[in-house]
Amino acid sequence: MIELWHSKDSRSLRALWTLEELGLDYRLHVLPFPPRLHDPDFTQINPLGTVPYFTDGVTRMTESAAIVHYLTQRHGAGTLAVAPEDPDYGDWLNWMYHADATLTFPQTLVLRYGRFEPVERRQKQVVEDYTQWFFSRLKLVNARLDGAEYLCAGRFTAADIAVGYALYLADVIGLGAHLKPQTRAWLERITARPAFARANAHGTSFAE
Amino acid sequence: MIELWHSKDSRSLRALWTLEELGLDYRLHVLPFPPRLHDPDFTQINPLGTVPYFTDGVTRMTESAAIVHYLTQRHGAGTLAVAPEDPDYGDWLNWMYHADATLTFPQTLVLRYGRFEPVERRQKQVVEDYTQWFFSRLKLVNARLDGAEYLCAGRFTAADIAVGYALYLADVIGLGAHLKPQTRAWLERITARPAFARANAHGTSFAE
Repeated sequence: MIELWHSKDSRSLRALWTLEELGLDYRLHVLPFPPRLHDPDFTQINPLGTVPYFTDGVTRMTESAAIVHYLTQRHGAGTLAVAPEDPDYGDWLNWMYHADATLTFPQTLVLRYGRFEPVERRQKQVVEDYTQWFFSRLKLVNARLDGAEYLCAGRFTAADIAVGYALYLADVIGLGAHLKPQTRAWLERITARPAFARANAHGTSFAE
Repeated sequence: MIELWHSKDSRSLRALWTLEELGLDYRLHVLPFPPRLHDPDFTQINPLGTVPYFTDGVTRMTESAAIVHYLTQRHGAGTLAVAPEDPDYGDWLNWMYHADATLTFPQTLVLRYGRFEPVERRQKQVVEDYTQWFFSRLKLVNARLDGAEYLCAGRFTAADIAVGYALYLADVIGLGAHLKPQTRAWLERITARPAFARANAHGTSFAE
């Protein structure tokens, strides 16, 4: 049985969205964010204290984009993936890794130093630096979606889930007003999917 | 023909190390770091202005761990990978994504606000926050290497390259003194490989 530890609007949404797209059975544990502050016992389950935490038999995972990737191979019959022999394989892999390492991390700084830290530890300069960094790194997304419905391979794939979460997060934390029109249209297209709505129905956002 | 744009001690070392481990032919372009400052024309090749930049036929990639992953599948006959049907597959994938998203990004903050920014924009608090963050996120690495020679599957894989670069970077930027003994021993083991030495021979470090 697959189990997933999740907080609303956190990166675990990537895993939950994928579980719903694939119609898989799973047991969901919903935690307030960040769980290591609200639920100290959680570090006995996941030593890092982070979400997502994911188990499937002997498998234990903590990286949201890796869980999405895993599900496409182990439980998705490749339907949301691009196969190694496909000309778009490298492109697909690049989006899968780009989603978290390049497009999510700058937003964690905007959140930390603009909202989560006590007022005396907030850092306006860092918030500005990484807001600018985020928008400069959106160049690849904006260029790709200019004339395309999905990020790669001409169809909805796990790359749209992985990168889509990063852009959804931009809306949650107040950076969404500056998205390019084609990127906004794509984000509306993919978050209109019933699987996204089902995944997004659990818990209370840290932004509320 | 594979081409790689590389700066010494930057994340592109992951790709170069993998090319050397697999004994592949490639054309190397060595740039000073960060290339977008020293070589403005580079943005006409890679719009992000970042290294690594990697091409192989129609494939264009910018994410270091994704390039390593790609090479294992397209040119490595899977020798440095773990196959989807292997019980260690999820573990391997988790390390592949963990390497950059979780273990490299905190170090980019230590570098930026401790060294690269003009003195008046440096942020001691951010350097301290993300030094602490980096060491707290090393928990999984430290636990895994306690009694194991390699990170997963009982052998040297691309996960050791991807995570190994992050720990090598810690040494470059002055965080290496606090590594646990088992993690230090593993880092010495993997960087003693001839392929690492060949990959590490090009260019001048930003730390010099």
